[in-house]
Amino acid sequence: MPVLNDEIPDDDDFDAGRSRGEFSGVTPEDFMRGGEGGNPPGWLDRGDIERARRQLPIAYVEVVPVRVDEMGAVSQAGTLLCVGEDGNIGRTLITGRVLYHETIREALARNISKDLGELALPMLPTSPQPFTVAEFFPTPGVSEFYDPRQHAIALCYVVPVAGDCKPQDETLDVEWVDPRGDMLETFIGQMPNGHGSILRQALSWAGAL
Amino acid sequence: MPVLNDEIPDDDDFDAGRSRGEFSGVTPEDFMRGGEGGNPPGWLDRGDIERARRQLPIAYVEVVPVRVDEMGAVSQAGTLLCVGEDGNIGRTLITGRVLYHETIREALARNISKDLGELALPMLPTSPQPFTVAEFFPTPGVSEFYDPRQHAIALCYVVPVAGDCKPQDETLDVEWVDPRGDMLETFIGQMPNGHGSILRQALSWAGAL
Amino acid sequence: MPVLNDEIPDDDDFDAGRSRGEFSGVTPEDFMRGGEGGNPPGWLDRGDIERARRQLPIAYVEVVPVRVDEMGAVSQAGTLLCVGEDGNIGRTLITGRVLYHETIREALARNISKDLGELALPMLPTSPQPFTVAEFFPTPGVSEFYDPRQHAIALCYVVPVAGDCKPQDETLDVEWVDPRGDMLETFIGQMPNGHGSILRQALSWAGAL
Amino acid sequence: MPVLNDEIPDDDDFDAGRSRGEFSGVTPEDFMRGGEGGNPPGWLDRGDIERARRQLPIAYVEVVPVRVDEMGAVSQAGTLLCVGEDGNIGRTLITGRVLYHETIREALARNISKDLGELALPMLPTSPQPFTVAEFFPTPGVSEFYDPRQHAIALCYVVPVAGDCKPQDETLDVEWVDPRGDMLETFIGQMPNGHGSILRQALSWAGAL
Repeated sequence: MPVLNDEIPDDDDFDAGRSRGEFSGVTPEDFMRGGEGGNPPGWLDRGDIERARRQLPIAYVEVVPVRVDEMGAVSQAGTLLCVGEDGNIGRTLITGRVLYHETIREALARNISKDLGELALPMLPTSPQPFTVAEFFPTPGVSEFYDPRQHAIALCYVVPVAGDCKPQDETLDVEWVDPRGDMLETFIGQMPNGHGSILRQALSWAGAL
Repeated sequence: MPVLNDEIPDDDDFDAGRSRGEFSGVTPEDFMRGGEGGNPPGWLDRGDIERARRQLPIAYVEVVPVRVDEMGAVSQAGTLLCVGEDGNIGRTLITGRVLYHETIREALARNISKDLGELALPMLPTSPQPFTVAEFFPTPGVSEFYDPRQHAIALCYVVPVAGDCKPQDETLDVEWVDPRGDMLETFIGQMPNGHGSILRQALSWAGAL
Repeated sequence: MPVLNDEIPDDDDFDAGRSRGEFSGVTPEDFMRGGEGGNPPGWLDRGDIERARRQLPIAYVEVVPVRVDEMGAVSQAGTLLCVGEDGNIGRTLITGRVLYHETIREALARNISKDLGELALPMLPTSPQPFTVAEFFPTPGVSEFYDPRQHAIALCYVVPVAGDCKPQDETLDVEWVDPRGDMLETFIGQMPNGHGSILRQALSWAGAL
Repeated sequence: MPVLNDEIPDDDDFDAGRSRGEFSGVTPEDFMRGGEGGNPPGWLDRGDIERARRQLPIAYVEVVPVRVDEMGAVSQAGTLLCVGEDGNIGRTLITGRVLYHETIREALARNISKDLGELALPMLPTSPQPFTVAEFFPTPGVSEFYDPRQHAIALCYVVPVAGDCKPQDETLDVEWVDPRGDMLETFIGQMPNGHGSILRQALSWAGAL
């Protein structure tokens, strides 16, 4: 089974060019929205993110991108094919950390844009109420959600996307599946560590199964 | 206090040209989606809807139309100004009955189109889970939701609309209000029988208050 | 496949001893809570319920009874074994109509009591927000939810029960299943017309799968 | 306006007797549920929690304790009177951090027990879906939720309590308010930084306003 990109240290989670010492002097105001170019404010260097991951739960968003018909019903759900740390290819969803002083909506928009590109045209959720909260633990067996890197608390949302989705960065491809088609169970079976369960729960909540 | 259009017999709720006798011969197939022009299948004549209203709860949808910004956050909520049976003007939301063999999504689309026009471009909800269910009783004081006509169970949804909203039929105007502005409480105060409470609850659920 | 009790005319849905003529004289006040013994106010005779079922969607509640551990997590889900109209035995959930002038909470309490007995000690939901809304149509194939009798709109709730559950009336037995055990899929497969899907969705929403 | 206890460094958030060096050697297994006596596993010393609070959002739970009637409807909502860092008394809700390797249910149980005592008999939620997510920022004005200590992401739940509630630790008193009574707005007005808004939203979601 491949190691998926959301189970390895994520390049987005640290900024190798910024030392922790420099970071410590940053004031809340530096993290206001609209920060200057380069890495977004809130990124941590590798030492800081690794320490945090041993010390407290990390807040995540997880997104099931969907195509909807003109009545709002889900016609397709999107999954990502990614290369894991071990060089194998795996299937996953859009997932990423909420950065310091970033709103949930900003985290959703940033992570969708990172994986699907700038032209995906997501309809971000009207309410902050997630359809579920998935708790990933670094110890296998505590829950169906497992993440060897960390204890993560993932707020899960279904997000309709109306535009063109182009794989970005380490995402090799965006593959869509019909919720009522034969391939759904195959896709879910290829999504380890609980992400397949989140996909199934999203489609269940949407009334699409 | 004006009598609002959702408290008087609704022209949409019956079809004066179709007798109950004719209706009784209709088979389920006649109610399939895509029925021919004129009145939608599922309308009842005045006698039938009045009998039903004395006998069992009537399933409704109630919609809070909203404008959202590019991050999905609610920037404005829409209300309707209508002329009531008594000739007075009142403020309300989009509300209407779910017809026989009509899906909730179809009822949402039909009622939004009826009140806001064909160009409103609503983003119908991804999930059938409503943000609340409001129970209107014909007896004052049973709950904050009162409807002298009937016992109605209203599934309540927030629906972003991206297009042009044009008042239709008995709707005189569509007026928008900033959730954080001074006018919100005024608008809510003008919406009797619990509809103001639904507006407030919608904005609360959306994290917009 | 057996015909389940929620697919045949339900004795609870009419009151053979009360003619429609008598019913017509009933005022809203007669339907207030705390009605006198015998049939609950709001019952319809067979002619009235059958007419209503051809004319408009019928409001239902559907309940997944669960056992929870001391942390609130679902340890078991309850299903009902019932004898259908054809004499065959089928598996289903707690389901019943919302009667005229009955609150959703009252409908939940009445239907749970009818199927599980007076000592089930249900913890009725704090919020009216259902985990889903299931739309049953009398036409096969419109949705996964099928009810040959009617178009029903079922508000679905998970309800923890702490007491003794005794099968009542046409319920032969209450059988419990471990959400993570081998029998769950067997049980779901024995629940036709979408009720198995509601059980699965309930457990998914509860984070118990 | 008093500084509330959830706005000052929380004794629960660090363990002065355990240095960061010791903590760094702890393995995931040490954080499994059922840790030995003394401080719960997952507590951080003051240096570690203060660093984390400058670096990433902190996962919180926030609880509105309620009394419910036999039908599950909210009859009273509980608030806490606490002494803040400045010696003034303030009103707030139950709120606390989710510790490393702690489930949301465990965090709810621990924080309810800490504030209401061991005999409160909470009915923990069946589903992890919160009624809302409140985002507290250390910069005033970013949202209505403000926390000078940190960026906190609070999963908000309504929890019925059936037992005796005894104020604990820095909680001076537990005061209950009728959702439909005159005192509600007074209580909400005494709850700064967005906690009053969470109380109002909880009661709105519960259909109790």
